[in-house]
Amino acid sequence: MNKNDVAPVPPMGWNSYDYYNTMVNEDQVRANAEYMAKNLKQYGWEYVVIDIQWSDPHAGDRNADGTQYIPFSRFCIDEYSRQIPAPNRFPSSEGGKGFKPLADYIHSLGLKFGIHIMRGIPRFAAHEHLAIKTNDGSKATADMVANPYSVSRWNPDMYGVDYKRPYAQDYYDSIFELYADWGVDFVKVDDICNTNMYPHNPYSAEKEVEMMAKAIENSGRSMVLSLSPGPAVIEKAHHYENFANMWRITDDFWDDWKLLKAMFERCEVWQKHTGDGNWPDCDMLPMNRLGWGWAAPGTPEEKRGWYSKFTKEETRTMITLWSIFRAPLMIGTDLPQLDDFNLSLLTNEEILAMDKCPNQAEQLSSSCHDDVVVWRNITDDGHAYYAYFNISEEKQTVTMNVDESVKGAVIRDLWQRKDLGEEVTFTLEPHACRAFKI
Amino acid sequence: MNKNDVAPVPPMGWNSYDYYNTMVNEDQVRANAEYMAKNLKQYGWEYVVIDIQWSDPHAGDRNADGTQYIPFSRFCIDEYSRQIPAPNRFPSSEGGKGFKPLADYIHSLGLKFGIHIMRGIPRFAAHEHLAIKTNDGSKATADMVANPYSVSRWNPDMYGVDYKRPYAQDYYDSIFELYADWGVDFVKVDDICNTNMYPHNPYSAEKEVEMMAKAIENSGRSMVLSLSPGPAVIEKAHHYENFANMWRITDDFWDDWKLLKAMFERCEVWQKHTGDGNWPDCDMLPMNRLGWGWAAPGTPEEKRGWYSKFTKEETRTMITLWSIFRAPLMIGTDLPQLDDFNLSLLTNEEILAMDKCPNQAEQLSSSCHDDVVVWRNITDDGHAYYAYFNISEEKQTVTMNVDESVKGAVIRDLWQRKDLGEEVTFTLEPHACRAFKI
Amino acid sequence: MNKNDVAPVPPMGWNSYDYYNTMVNEDQVRANAEYMAKNLKQYGWEYVVIDIQWSDPHAGDRNADGTQYIPFSRFCIDEYSRQIPAPNRFPSSEGGKGFKPLADYIHSLGLKFGIHIMRGIPRFAAHEHLAIKTNDGSKATADMVANPYSVSRWNPDMYGVDYKRPYAQDYYDSIFELYADWGVDFVKVDDICNTNMYPHNPYSAEKEVEMMAKAIENSGRSMVLSLSPGPAVIEKAHHYENFANMWRITDDFWDDWKLLKAMFERCEVWQKHTGDGNWPDCDMLPMNRLGWGWAAPGTPEEKRGWYSKFTKEETRTMITLWSIFRAPLMIGTDLPQLDDFNLSLLTNEEILAMDKCPNQAEQLSSSCHDDVVVWRNITDDGHAYYAYFNISEEKQTVTMNVDESVKGAVIRDLWQRKDLGEEVTFTLEPHACRAFKI
Amino acid sequence: MNKNDVAPVPPMGWNSYDYYNTMVNEDQVRANAEYMAKNLKQYGWEYVVIDIQWSDPHAGDRNADGTQYIPFSRFCIDEYSRQIPAPNRFPSSEGGKGFKPLADYIHSLGLKFGIHIMRGIPRFAAHEHLAIKTNDGSKATADMVANPYSVSRWNPDMYGVDYKRPYAQDYYDSIFELYADWGVDFVKVDDICNTNMYPHNPYSAEKEVEMMAKAIENSGRSMVLSLSPGPAVIEKAHHYENFANMWRITDDFWDDWKLLKAMFERCEVWQKHTGDGNWPDCDMLPMNRLGWGWAAPGTPEEKRGWYSKFTKEETRTMITLWSIFRAPLMIGTDLPQLDDFNLSLLTNEEILAMDKCPNQAEQLSSSCHDDVVVWRNITDDGHAYYAYFNISEEKQTVTMNVDESVKGAVIRDLWQRKDLGEEVTFTLEPHACRAFKI
Repeated sequence: MNKNDVAPVPPMGWNSYDYYNTMVNEDQVRANAEYMAKNLKQYGWEYVVIDIQWSDPHAGDRNADGTQYIPFSRFCIDEYSRQIPAPNRFPSSEGGKGFKPLADYIHSLGLKFGIHIMRGIPRFAAHEHLAIKTNDGSKATADMVANPYSVSRWNPDMYGVDYKRPYAQDYYDSIFELYADWGVDFVKVDDICNTNMYPHNPYSAEKEVEMMAKAIENSGRSMVLSLSPGPAVIEKAHHYENFANMWRITDDFWDDWKLLKAMFERCEVWQKHTGDGNWPDCDMLPMNRLGWGWAAPGTPEEKRGWYSKFTKEETRTMITLWSIFRAPLMIGTDLPQLDDFNLSLLTNEEILAMDKCPNQAEQLSSSCHDDVVVWRNITDDGHAYYAYFNISEEKQTVTMNVDESVKGAVIRDLWQRKDLGEEVTFTLEPHACRAFKI
Repeated sequence: MNKNDVAPVPPMGWNSYDYYNTMVNEDQVRANAEYMAKNLKQYGWEYVVIDIQWSDPHAGDRNADGTQYIPFSRFCIDEYSRQIPAPNRFPSSEGGKGFKPLADYIHSLGLKFGIHIMRGIPRFAAHEHLAIKTNDGSKATADMVANPYSVSRWNPDMYGVDYKRPYAQDYYDSIFELYADWGVDFVKVDDICNTNMYPHNPYSAEKEVEMMAKAIENSGRSMVLSLSPGPAVIEKAHHYENFANMWRITDDFWDDWKLLKAMFERCEVWQKHTGDGNWPDCDMLPMNRLGWGWAAPGTPEEKRGWYSKFTKEETRTMITLWSIFRAPLMIGTDLPQLDDFNLSLLTNEEILAMDKCPNQAEQLSSSCHDDVVVWRNITDDGHAYYAYFNISEEKQTVTMNVDESVKGAVIRDLWQRKDLGEEVTFTLEPHACRAFKI
Repeated sequence: MNKNDVAPVPPMGWNSYDYYNTMVNEDQVRANAEYMAKNLKQYGWEYVVIDIQWSDPHAGDRNADGTQYIPFSRFCIDEYSRQIPAPNRFPSSEGGKGFKPLADYIHSLGLKFGIHIMRGIPRFAAHEHLAIKTNDGSKATADMVANPYSVSRWNPDMYGVDYKRPYAQDYYDSIFELYADWGVDFVKVDDICNTNMYPHNPYSAEKEVEMMAKAIENSGRSMVLSLSPGPAVIEKAHHYENFANMWRITDDFWDDWKLLKAMFERCEVWQKHTGDGNWPDCDMLPMNRLGWGWAAPGTPEEKRGWYSKFTKEETRTMITLWSIFRAPLMIGTDLPQLDDFNLSLLTNEEILAMDKCPNQAEQLSSSCHDDVVVWRNITDDGHAYYAYFNISEEKQTVTMNVDESVKGAVIRDLWQRKDLGEEVTFTLEPHACRAFKI
Repeated sequence: MNKNDVAPVPPMGWNSYDYYNTMVNEDQVRANAEYMAKNLKQYGWEYVVIDIQWSDPHAGDRNADGTQYIPFSRFCIDEYSRQIPAPNRFPSSEGGKGFKPLADYIHSLGLKFGIHIMRGIPRFAAHEHLAIKTNDGSKATADMVANPYSVSRWNPDMYGVDYKRPYAQDYYDSIFELYADWGVDFVKVDDICNTNMYPHNPYSAEKEVEMMAKAIENSGRSMVLSLSPGPAVIEKAHHYENFANMWRITDDFWDDWKLLKAMFERCEVWQKHTGDGNWPDCDMLPMNRLGWGWAAPGTPEEKRGWYSKFTKEETRTMITLWSIFRAPLMIGTDLPQLDDFNLSLLTNEEILAMDKCPNQAEQLSSSCHDDVVVWRNITDDGHAYYAYFNISEEKQTVTMNVDESVKGAVIRDLWQRKDLGEEVTFTLEPHACRAFKI
């Protein structure tokens, strides 16, 4: 099993976090999956990913004090200290069935199923010396593999697992075996790509990545391994590439131009590292309605969150950059509420085709700090994609200067979906972009 | 109650750590106390301090794998999540009597009793939602005050206490109330003076210092508050001075010339901060036999540790610097094994008098990096102390150049205990020192 | 000669920088000196200090491109590579007389005369191998003492002087000899207290401080040695104290509440380092009209700069903090333009008396981050000063809680200049202060 | 002109620095060129590069005080402030002919000619306002383009050029025009790839790289642009690739195993950035005799320097790593003194062929910290190169595990130059390597 085969092109799908925070439940997941199956699947969207805290029965309550994560919570685990879905939020998991029924349903829609986990082992399992599953049936307990000094800076649930301990690999084998049983296709692991508790050693959990990669292989089931949060450490690119499929190249991304502008810098740095099952990850696409799960009780956002603060041009710029860079595309919103404009962006096959392009794109402009950032992807069949982004605050005029190999060919505008003349000069408003195929 | 009154001069005593590590037991403490009462008390030595891990019944076993602290250990606590002595190691504590019987015994010898604690609350108490004592009798549990993100970089036992939580002060009140009941005179708190897990915020536990200072006041019993480990953060000097009596100005100190040389730098920096119940702390005096508690099973050190690697001159330099700087003097060794040379250093009243001097000493040399470092303390009664230290690797010749106010007076050599002429020129071997009263 | 004798109390005076930038000329200096002699001298104000670039004939032109310092300028030097005043700006210096005539005039007014210098030696003198003066009359040139790697991050004129070179001390002797000849009483040396070009070694020029201190001694004339810019490095306090009289504890200070608020933090840190000729320096008092020398041609500020952006309460808070902390008081403005309000602040002897107090003040509040910061200075004659500062953004109510030694005495309000009752409760507006003598 | 065309494969040649330091002269350069033409040219070696300080007439003297660079030296420049060879060291340059005669001679041997420069403009030219050449014939002087704050941390000669100044590009055009006139084929620019004076901005001279790239283009002559010293900043890889051909990925490399071991780390990081005229540079190959130019007068090294401290296995490991990674190969030694062993390493075409391989190699081992580091390069014609390096201190046993595409083919040992069986298991001594073609 080659870990790269599971993701021949950048994964496309939906993730619960940007709209639901820690609060998503089974009905909501099903509704999003059904919407995807009906409206998006034909364009390549396929992963349905449940983000953080699905094992915590209390995470579904709107929390008056604004604490995103609940310290010292007794979330649900099985007899081997493995997290299982909270049955009050995921009723089909009742009776030890875990996510299997929900995964089966999602598979029945022709889609794939993903979950989020924190790296490590539940802290309370370590302190209470609870059992873990071992490969040879020996008795072992959580304290035997947990590292009391390896904690997250932002989530209170887990201890990292110390790879030097005898049953460390067994523990990771045991959780991925469970996920394989459930039918999981995608695992987003958190507090691992950049363990920001440790500023002098931001990739401190690299051995845990290795154990997880091996556990997936040992499980016999292909699963995409996605590492979070960023920024990923560029000096460690080779390690990410050896063991994972996706790794977050920024911290959490939201609907804020400053963050979108900064992504050009990250894409410049990582441009030589896309392809062959390796997809540097620009995080979810925050679109349409967002943030319902963060709303304080009694606020207007408690109803439907807020509408993305990106302008239409900025949203288009985001999707175009992710696509030509060949980032994973994970929609961050509540899909059933999608409006026509946002839906149209997600169903433009000509744009999405860039994301599935087998060759690596490259930034042509000399620096991601130029006013107009230019990206190109030359395909094997004699075509080329070009995208132009105005990241300045002034209007910019651009004259296309295309590669010899495609000179003279018809220029196709991918957002307008129409053919243009041979050479094109155009004006870009601030934060706007144009994308072409030639 | 003024917190400074408890320590009018730098505290002097013995600490179990340098010889016993985490392994000291009641018999050994008693033997050291008895030795002190008999041989050292008349020179001002009075504190008997039990260092780290006294609540852990397993810390007394020689640990084959070399782990100093035992992860996920279930150490002894009472019904309010307060650590109590492990009865297998401190038999007199049996039946909930805590350290009271041992403290009583030490008091009966005319000495004072001290203990070490880690800041915070037992991690397992937080995860198991165990009870804590509140001032108004409300029910509360450890998870309500513990901060899951506040951990030590080197000890796995505790979570910091979040001062913003309703019962945080109550928890600290409850433990110091217990210590007051036991008759504790000195509390060395660890992982607090420099919380080195957090390089960008090394005094991250400052609010816990405030809570402890208040808890001592609330307890009604005077106790020296000593903060560890260092290096203390000089920018926070005012805060230490407001709430504590001692704070460690270096990381752990051992019998190594490099560390002793570095102490001159630390003393230069802190010289304006001694006095009035405030005693920047240079750590224990590692002397004679050391490190028995670190010895791996089967090694020669298992018997009696090792003999201090300091030369005689270096040991003298250490005691002289600590004394003229007016640092606390806490002996790190097993007292009953003291040899004549080391005992003689600890019983030289003329040297120890510098430590008890009411005025602040000052470094006269322009920099702690000079070859010969000079310190002076002018007393109110028309005398002056001078100490000269050769911290270079070459022999140095020194001609004394004394203050106008004492010019012409007899010069007394404090180590040789004899009077010299009026003006003195002498040679200092590398790492050697001379100390004078004029 | 004891370098501390020159400044028994914190120096008080005027500095040209805040109003004139690099552009001040002789007439303007004389006008300020005359104003001081007439209106301020009786309150203790005495130093008249010409700040940066007085040797540059072109620094007096309003510079269209906004460059404060002129790269590769051929400023005026004498035959020994020593800077001399530009005669076009300081006509009395014509004919090699240097600042002597101006100093004489200022002395004739009963005032003292100060100048600013950059540490080091003119870069062009080093590159052209120009002569320097040596103590034994040997021929030597600037390149023999200049360090080509020691430059300023913000001024292009000088190279640092390498103390390891044979004639390094001679060079510094030669310039201070010249200043002594002129009658200079105060030298503010720049790019030396914190050499911020070198982030890993911010006190990289410490050996130059030593050479300058020695050069002052060698000159036979007492001169205040003032080091700039800050922040001074607290770990190096002992060195500053050994060789200088003043050292800047912040970067440049201006009329901005954020900077004023930050000064409370700096004063807390440095509070044990005032007195005995050592005066941690909070920088000039920016008041009334400011910044004329920075105005671009054709802007309104070209006429009279701008009026201080501090509110009246903030200006009062500034003067109160500087005074109770015992900082040097150097007025930053054009004195002849002073309005009544600002003049009244500078002529309140009851406030200024705090600055001249022989004892050290201390911050009583536990942290400079408290809402109300409290300082106290207990005098030897049974009185005490108290100052209360509201550094928060909300109104605060304060009840005075005074020292036992002064309990029951009359409380004098220093700004209102009236006696109050025994115990006082009062309200402080945001950024406001009260100062009392008891 | 595409800047990448000048270096279709990694440049191979000789550089004067490792043996001659700053002291090389024309005879020595000629002797090395002649040796190369006779013994190495047929293997692809072609560049003859004169390293640092060729314009300084005094750099050829053995310097008693050990200063490598001479502060405030008046090195040779022409009427436009451009450095020219010191005629005492390079006699053929007499009469303003510059390096043209020497370049002509080297070209006549069928070789190429390279020089080293520091970025920027002579400091003394700026201070003396000396003329520079402008494209439109306007009068301009060095001070108009020099940046007084842009200096090197280790060389005292130059100021950086400020790209915002009107004649900045003209200045760079003027020097590269001169080099084109001389017939220069290769320019190694120093203090530019990592400007380590500025720890917070290590690629502070990036605009100067752009100006130089443009100046080469403007000159009309192809020249390799090589940037030094390292470590290059991986986040800036795209910028290096856009403007240069080589950039140093480490600081100076010498005959020290620690440095060689560290190069595996650097190669891992940069592996995706080789090819298409872009060659991350591992620095010269220090071999055979070294360091004559550093010898103090009267020491044995004054005669012939020292013999490389690398073992034979380490030297082989160095050449193998450079070759399979496709680094530039620049020999650092005095070629005429080469012994047979070292010569044999430089003339093994089978090894050198890896360096000229058109495809990118990749590190197969998961981390450059593994005991055995493995590299592979799959060629388009159905072959593959493999290199195995034992970077540990213990003997390692390796069983080759080759790519499907070459399974079953004959395995050729490139150092032993013989064919082996199909599958190979072998032992590697510490620091040793094996290289194969399949």
